[in-house]
Amino acid sequence: MTEIAHLLESPAEQIAATVDAAARAAASWAKTSRTDRANSLRAVADAMNRSADDLIPIVDSETALGATRLTGELARTVHQLRMFADVVEEGTYLEVAIDHANLDAPVPISGDIRRWLVPIGPVAVFSASNFPLAFSVLGGDTASALAAGCTVVVKAHQGHPRTSDMVLGIARNALRASGITEDIIGLVHGREAGRSLISHPAIAAAGFTGSVAGGKALAELAHARTHPIPFFGELGSQNTFLVSSGAADARADAIADGLANSVLLGNGQFCTKPGLVFLPASPSGQRIVDVLADRIGSRPESAFLTGPVRDGFVAGIGRLLDATGLTRLAGSDTATAPSLWECEPALLGDEVLEECFGPTAVVVRYRDQHELSGLLDRVDPALTATFHTEQHERDFTTWILDTIAPKAGRIVANQYPTGVAVTASMHHGGPSPSTTNSQHTSVGATSIRRFLRPIAFQNVEQELLPAELRDMDGAAVLRRIDGTLSFNSRTSTGIVSSVYPNLPQLPRETP
Amino acid sequence: MTEIAHLLESPAEQIAATVDAAARAAASWAKTSRTDRANSLRAVADAMNRSADDLIPIVDSETALGATRLTGELARTVHQLRMFADVVEEGTYLEVAIDHANLDAPVPISGDIRRWLVPIGPVAVFSASNFPLAFSVLGGDTASALAAGCTVVVKAHQGHPRTSDMVLGIARNALRASGITEDIIGLVHGREAGRSLISHPAIAAAGFTGSVAGGKALAELAHARTHPIPFFGELGSQNTFLVSSGAADARADAIADGLANSVLLGNGQFCTKPGLVFLPASPSGQRIVDVLADRIGSRPESAFLTGPVRDGFVAGIGRLLDATGLTRLAGSDTATAPSLWECEPALLGDEVLEECFGPTAVVVRYRDQHELSGLLDRVDPALTATFHTEQHERDFTTWILDTIAPKAGRIVANQYPTGVAVTASMHHGGPSPSTTNSQHTSVGATSIRRFLRPIAFQNVEQELLPAELRDMDGAAVLRRIDGTLSFNSRTSTGIVSSVYPNLPQLPRETP
Repeated sequence: MTEIAHLLESPAEQIAATVDAAARAAASWAKTSRTDRANSLRAVADAMNRSADDLIPIVDSETALGATRLTGELARTVHQLRMFADVVEEGTYLEVAIDHANLDAPVPISGDIRRWLVPIGPVAVFSASNFPLAFSVLGGDTASALAAGCTVVVKAHQGHPRTSDMVLGIARNALRASGITEDIIGLVHGREAGRSLISHPAIAAAGFTGSVAGGKALAELAHARTHPIPFFGELGSQNTFLVSSGAADARADAIADGLANSVLLGNGQFCTKPGLVFLPASPSGQRIVDVLADRIGSRPESAFLTGPVRDGFVAGIGRLLDATGLTRLAGSDTATAPSLWECEPALLGDEVLEECFGPTAVVVRYRDQHELSGLLDRVDPALTATFHTEQHERDFTTWILDTIAPKAGRIVANQYPTGVAVTASMHHGGPSPSTTNSQHTSVGATSIRRFLRPIAFQNVEQELLPAELRDMDGAAVLRRIDGTLSFNSRTSTGIVSSVYPNLPQLPRETP
Repeated sequence: MTEIAHLLESPAEQIAATVDAAARAAASWAKTSRTDRANSLRAVADAMNRSADDLIPIVDSETALGATRLTGELARTVHQLRMFADVVEEGTYLEVAIDHANLDAPVPISGDIRRWLVPIGPVAVFSASNFPLAFSVLGGDTASALAAGCTVVVKAHQGHPRTSDMVLGIARNALRASGITEDIIGLVHGREAGRSLISHPAIAAAGFTGSVAGGKALAELAHARTHPIPFFGELGSQNTFLVSSGAADARADAIADGLANSVLLGNGQFCTKPGLVFLPASPSGQRIVDVLADRIGSRPESAFLTGPVRDGFVAGIGRLLDATGLTRLAGSDTATAPSLWECEPALLGDEVLEECFGPTAVVVRYRDQHELSGLLDRVDPALTATFHTEQHERDFTTWILDTIAPKAGRIVANQYPTGVAVTASMHHGGPSPSTTNSQHTSVGATSIRRFLRPIAFQNVEQELLPAELRDMDGAAVLRRIDGTLSFNSRTSTGIVSSVYPNLPQLPRETP
C-alpha cells in the first residue's frame, strides 16, 4: 500500500497545504533565539541517533547501501545537525557589522547602521538519491536551512519514500517535543510536486543535489518565476584525477589501489567519483592501468540506488561503446558491470568529458606536459580535481595547481576525492557545469550562507533590535564595529564582562 | 568628433580585444599579493583625487549634476577605492578556514583542508547613469571587483562617455605607474557592446546598476549562457516611506521638509528616493501633505541625467495621469516638473507600485493599522523602507519593523533613505524586484563577496599554498582553525610573534 501510494504524486492540495504551513511558521522560526534554535537542532539530531535500529533496515531495504555504510551516513547526518547547532550558537555566521553615526566620515554616516544576515524565507530542498540520510529529508541542505532560521519543504527522492516519511516523522516529533511547531519542516512526493514547489510564490530559495538534466530543469523554473529565487544546484561532475610520471614511478600499485577503491566506492555513485584519469605514457603508467583494470574488472556487479540511476549508467556506457577512440580495458559485456576504459588523447570528446554516474572511469595517457596541458584545456569545471605528484616535481606540481584551480571547487593532493569532510573548511561546489552557483557550498559549515540575506537597520532604536545588534550585548558574537572586529566576552556566570575588548588590532591604514 | 564617435558602438574587434586583454591579465592580477593590490587601489584613488580640477568640469558638462555634488561624489569614489584597499589588506574577507587531518572526527578529515575565497574571474561592470563617478568606470562595482582580484571590463554609460574615457585613462596610467598591467581594466561603449560582454565566455560575473528593463534583459543573457554567470543587478525600487500618527502629530513640518528634500535630491534620480508615502488620515497628516505639496510644487524644473531618463520619467508621469484614483497635489502640466500625487487607498495599483525614477512621489493616506496592513501587503520589496514613529508608539513600531523587514534591504527609522553610507554595515540591495540577487550588496565593504568563490585545498603541501593558508603565516588575517577563530599577530618589526594566540573562546558545545 505504502509503495503504491508513493508512486503517486502528492495531491495539489497537500502540496499547497504543506507550503502554506511552512510559510506560516517562517516568521516565528526566524525569530527563535539562537540558543533555542541550536537546541532544537540538537533534539532532532538526538532523535535521529536514537532511531538507528528502526531506521537503518528501512533505508537499506530501499537503497541496498548496506548497514555499515548507512550507519556511517547516519552518524554524518547527526553530526551535520549538531555542527549547525554549534554554528548557530557561535554566531559568527551572522556577519554582524555596526557603524555608529559619523557625519565627518569621508562619506557621512547619518545614523547608526546595524547589519546582519536574516533567513531568506521558506526553502525547498530536493533530496539526493545517493545519500538517503545525509542529503535527504534531514540532510545538509535541510540542516543548514533550518539553522539559518528558514522553514523547509523537502521534495522526497523517489528512491527512498518510506525512509523520507520516517525521517520526517522523527523530525516533527522531536521538534514538537522541544516546543517548536513541527511545520518548520514538511515533505512532498513526486516530480510534479517538485515543479510546483520551485514555482510556489512562498518559496524563497532552493537546494538541490542530483542530475544535470534535473537540476537544469529546476534552475529554469527558478529563473522563470515573476520573482526569481536563488537555486543552489549541485549537479555532479566528471572529476579529474591526474598522476605525474614521478608519482607513477614511486607508487604505482598504491595509487592504482586507492583509485580503484575511490572509483568503486558506493558502486561509483558519488558526485566526487574520479571519472577521468590522466596517466603518464610510461611503464609505471602502464602498471597503474594494469592494476586498476584488475581491481575494477574483478569487482562483481553491485546494486544501483534506483532504476533511473541504473538506466542512466547504462546509457552512459552506451555512449562510451559508441564513441570512437575508446577501448574497454576492464568490464564485461553487461553494461552494469564495473568497467575501465582508455581514450586516445587526440579523441578526447564529449562522451568522455561528461560524467557517467556509476562504477566506471576513463584513462587518458599523456606523453608530456605540453600534451597534458592541451587535454586539461578541454576538461569542464568540476567539484574536485586530484593530482598525485612527488616532492621533487615542484615545478610540475605548481603548474598543475595553477592549471586546475580555476576549474575545481576542491583540489586534492596525493589522496582521493571521495569522502567529503563536514567542516568549516570544506568546499563542495565548483564552477558551472558542476553547480548552478559556484559561490557557495552544499557541504560544511559555510553552506548556511546560501539561505541568508543581509539587512541593515539605520537609526533604529537598539531596544527594538535583536541582542546581536545592540551595543550592550548579552549574546557574545564576533562583530565588526566601526570597522574593527570586536568580541563581547562573557564570564562563567553568563554575565557580559566587557563591551568591546579589542581583538588584536587588524592592520588598517587610514587614508 | 568625440561625441559622434561615442554614439557609435565599440567595434566587435575592439570588444573582443578588450575582453581578451582582461582575460589574459586575470591570472597575474589574481596572484598579486594583498599588499600590492591594496597599494594599486590607493594609487588609483590618489590619481582620481589629483584629477579633480580636470575631471569635474567634464563630468558636469555631460551630466549637469553641478560641481558641488560632483566634488562630493568624487570624494566618495576615492573613499571607496581606499576602503577596498583596507579590506584587502585586512584580509578577513578571505574567509580562511583550516581543518587539520583528523580521522577520529565524527566525519573523518582525511587530509588537512584549507579553504579561502579566490577571484571569480573577469567581471563585466555596467555603469549607472546617476553616479557618473561613484557607480561608473572606477565606481563601487569596479573597486570591489579589482579588490577581489578580478580584472574588469566596464560597459560605459551612454550618458557620460567622455567622463568614462577620461577616468579609464586615469586608472590605466596610475596602474602602469604602480607596476601593474593596465589591462586589468578596460572599457567598451554601446548597447550591443554590453550584450556581447555579458555573453562572452571569458566573463565570469557581472555587476549592474540601472533600469528594471535593462537589468532584466541582461539577467536573461547571463542565465542563457552555456555556463550561466552570477549577475548582480541593482534595478531600482519604489521605496516606502511611512509616518505614524504620533510622528505626524509631533513633527509634521520637519518630516515634510526632510521628505521633500529626499524626494527632490538630485532631481529625484536616486534608487533610494522615497516614492510611496503612507501618511495618517489625520489633521497632522494633512499638514504633512500641505507642506510637502508646497515644497515640491515650488521647486523649479531641473535637468535630467540623460534623454532616456527624462523620457522614462515622462512615461511614468503619463501612467499616473491615466490611472484611476490618482489626484495631482503639486506640479504643473509640464510632465518633467517635480510633482506630488495622492492615491485613494482602495485603488493602490501597479501604476503607483512601480518606481517612477525622477522628482515625484505618491501619497496614500491610511485610517488605521488594519488598513495600513492591507496596503503594505501590496507593496513590492525594495532597496529601502523608512518609517517615522514616536517612542510612545512602541507596539506600532515593532509591528512596522516586522512587517517591512521581509521586503527591504535597509530599514531607516526617523531619517531619510537617500544618502548611502559606504561602510561594512551598509546593505544596498533587497529582494526581487529591487535586485536580481538579494544575498549581496552593491555598496559597502561586503560587496567584494560578489566577485569571489570558495576553493578548498586538501592535503596540498603548505609551501605550495599562499601565506594565508599556511600554519606559520606571515600575513596576519583572521582565520578559523580547527573550528576556532584565530589570529596571527605581528610585531612592529613585521615579524610574526606567535602562531595562534587564541581569540576569546567562542561559545561552543561539543556534542
